[in-house]
Amino acid sequence: MNTEIYDAIVVGGGVSGAAAAMYCARFNLKTLGFATLPGGLITTTHMVENYPGIKQITGPAMGQVFLEHAMETGAEYNFSTVTKIEKKDDVFVIIASGKEFQSRTVIYSTGTEHKHLGVPGEEEFKNKGVSYCALCDAAFFKEKTVAVVGGGDTAAIDANILAQHCKKVYVLVRKDFMRAEPTNQDRIEADPKVEICYETEIAEICGEDKMTHVILKDGSRMDLDGVFIAIGWNTNSALAQDLGVELNARNEVIITRQSETNIAGFFAAGDVTDAKFKQAIIGAGEGVYASVMAYDYIQKNFR
Amino acid sequence: MNTEIYDAIVVGGGVSGAAAAMYCARFNLKTLGFATLPGGLITTTHMVENYPGIKQITGPAMGQVFLEHAMETGAEYNFSTVTKIEKKDDVFVIIASGKEFQSRTVIYSTGTEHKHLGVPGEEEFKNKGVSYCALCDAAFFKEKTVAVVGGGDTAAIDANILAQHCKKVYVLVRKDFMRAEPTNQDRIEADPKVEICYETEIAEICGEDKMTHVILKDGSRMDLDGVFIAIGWNTNSALAQDLGVELNARNEVIITRQSETNIAGFFAAGDVTDAKFKQAIIGAGEGVYASVMAYDYIQKNFR
Repeated sequence: MNTEIYDAIVVGGGVSGAAAAMYCARFNLKTLGFATLPGGLITTTHMVENYPGIKQITGPAMGQVFLEHAMETGAEYNFSTVTKIEKKDDVFVIIASGKEFQSRTVIYSTGTEHKHLGVPGEEEFKNKGVSYCALCDAAFFKEKTVAVVGGGDTAAIDANILAQHCKKVYVLVRKDFMRAEPTNQDRIEADPKVEICYETEIAEICGEDKMTHVILKDGSRMDLDGVFIAIGWNTNSALAQDLGVELNARNEVIITRQSETNIAGFFAAGDVTDAKFKQAIIGAGEGVYASVMAYDYIQKNFR
Repeated sequence: MNTEIYDAIVVGGGVSGAAAAMYCARFNLKTLGFATLPGGLITTTHMVENYPGIKQITGPAMGQVFLEHAMETGAEYNFSTVTKIEKKDDVFVIIASGKEFQSRTVIYSTGTEHKHLGVPGEEEFKNKGVSYCALCDAAFFKEKTVAVVGGGDTAAIDANILAQHCKKVYVLVRKDFMRAEPTNQDRIEADPKVEICYETEIAEICGEDKMTHVILKDGSRMDLDGVFIAIGWNTNSALAQDLGVELNARNEVIITRQSETNIAGFFAAGDVTDAKFKQAIIGAGEGVYASVMAYDYIQKNFR
C-alpha cells in the first residue's frame, strides 16, 4: 500500500480529466491521474475543428496535448485502470492494477464507450466488418460498400469520412429523421456516394470468415463489406454508482453547475456527467470547475 | 434599418462571445457578433497558461485566435458598440452605432471592466501613474517603485509582472490575508522585491503633473511612481438589465447550467454571468451551451 495521500485523484485521462488535473496542479494540489485510454475518446476522432481557440487539430494530437498540459503543469499520470473506489472516513481509497492509492478528493471523468446494436452476428464479426470507429477503420474499406448505423451527428460525420474511401455508404436511420449538425447532414445529403435510408434497422449481421451482408428488420437483404455502428455511447459510471454516487436514468453522473456530486469530495466532469450537450469544451469547463471545488473542499476540510 | 433578420446576435467579442459565435456558425445560424474590445479582456493579460489544450499563449494572441476561429467558421463581426437591446414580439432589436439590427436570439457576453478605487486623485492621475493593467504598463516603470492594490489573484499576478521591471513592488491588501492562487502567492512571497502590506488602504493619490505619492488611511505617506489597481471588475450587465434580464446582487446575469436567462431567446455567457469561477474555459463552455440552446430555440420557434 502506498501510504502517501494525494489531494486529488483524477480518474480519466481524456480532455475533461486532463483539464481537471492541469488545474489541480496549478492549485498546488498533489495530483495523480489515471488514464486507461490516454487522451480519451477524442483520440478516435479524425479532426477536431470546434474546440474554441484551436482552429483545427487531429483527435490523437488533441488528446496528447491535453495530457501533456496536465503533466507539464505538475500532475502525475498512471496509465493503469481503476477498478474500485471506496470512501474510508474522510479519505478515498482507489484500487488500480491491484495497488491501493489514497486521496482527499476524486474527480471522476471516465467518459463513455461505444454502444452496441445487440443483434446476432455483431460480436462474431467485430473487426471482421463490424466497427465502432469509422475514423480508425475507414481506410480498410477502399472502394467497398458499407453502412453506417445511426441517426445522430456521429453517424453523419462517420458517413462523411467513409465516403472519402468507399464506393457506397448507406446510412441506416431507425427514425424518419436525423438529428445531426446541419453542416454535417448537408454534406452527406449532397454527396452522391451517400444514401440515407430512413426507418431502416438491422436484424442480423451475416457472413462466413468476414461479414458479407445484413438482414434488415423488413426481411430484406443488403450486401455490405462493413457496418459502422454509431448509435451512441454507454457512460462509464459503474465505479461511481458502486460508491453511492447518484446517476440519472441514462446512467450519467448527476452534477451541479460546479461539478459536485451527492458525495462530498467526489466531483465529476466530462461525457460521464448529465451535461445536456457532450462536447470537449463543455467537459473541459466541468473539469476546471471540479478542480476549483476540490481545492475549496481541501481548504475547508484539511488545511 | 437593416431588414435582414439574424438567427443569433452575439454581444461581445471576447473568448466567450467568440466561442458562442463559432458554434452558432457551425450550426448554420446566420450569426453577427459585436465587439467593442476585439478579443475581450483577455487581451490585457500577458501570458495565458491555463486554458486547457493551449499550453502557453499571450493574451492578445488568444483573443485574436478566438475571433478568427469564429469568423473563419462563418460568423460576421462588427466592431461597433451595442447601446440598446429591445424585444419586439419574438424578435430582438439591437442598436449599435445608431443602426438597428434584428435577431431571433441574443447571446450576451459583454464581460467585465476594471473596478475603480474611488479615492481622490484616481481619475486625475489615470495614465499619469495610475493604471488598471500591469501587463500593459509595467515596462513604463523600469527601476521605479510602485504599489499594487488588491488581495486577489490578479493582484498577485500583477505584482509578479511588475517585479520583473520595477525596483520595488508593494502589494496593498485591505484584509489581513490574500486569496490568490497559491502558485502566484508563493512567487510574490519568495520575491525580495515584493513586500505585502496587509490591512493597508489608500486614502488619496497625490502629485503634480504625475502622481508622486499616496496617503494611506492611517495618515502615513508612501512615495510611489505608480499605482496599479487590481481590485476586481464591474460586470457590463446594464443593457441586459434594461431589457428585464434578472441579475444577482453582484449585478451578474443569472443563468442556468445551459446559459439560459429568464428571457426566452436571450442567453448569456462568460464573465458577465453569475459563474462562481471566472476563467476563459468556463466562459467558452457557457458560450457553447448558449449557442446550442439558441439553435434549439430557433428550431422550436421559427422552423
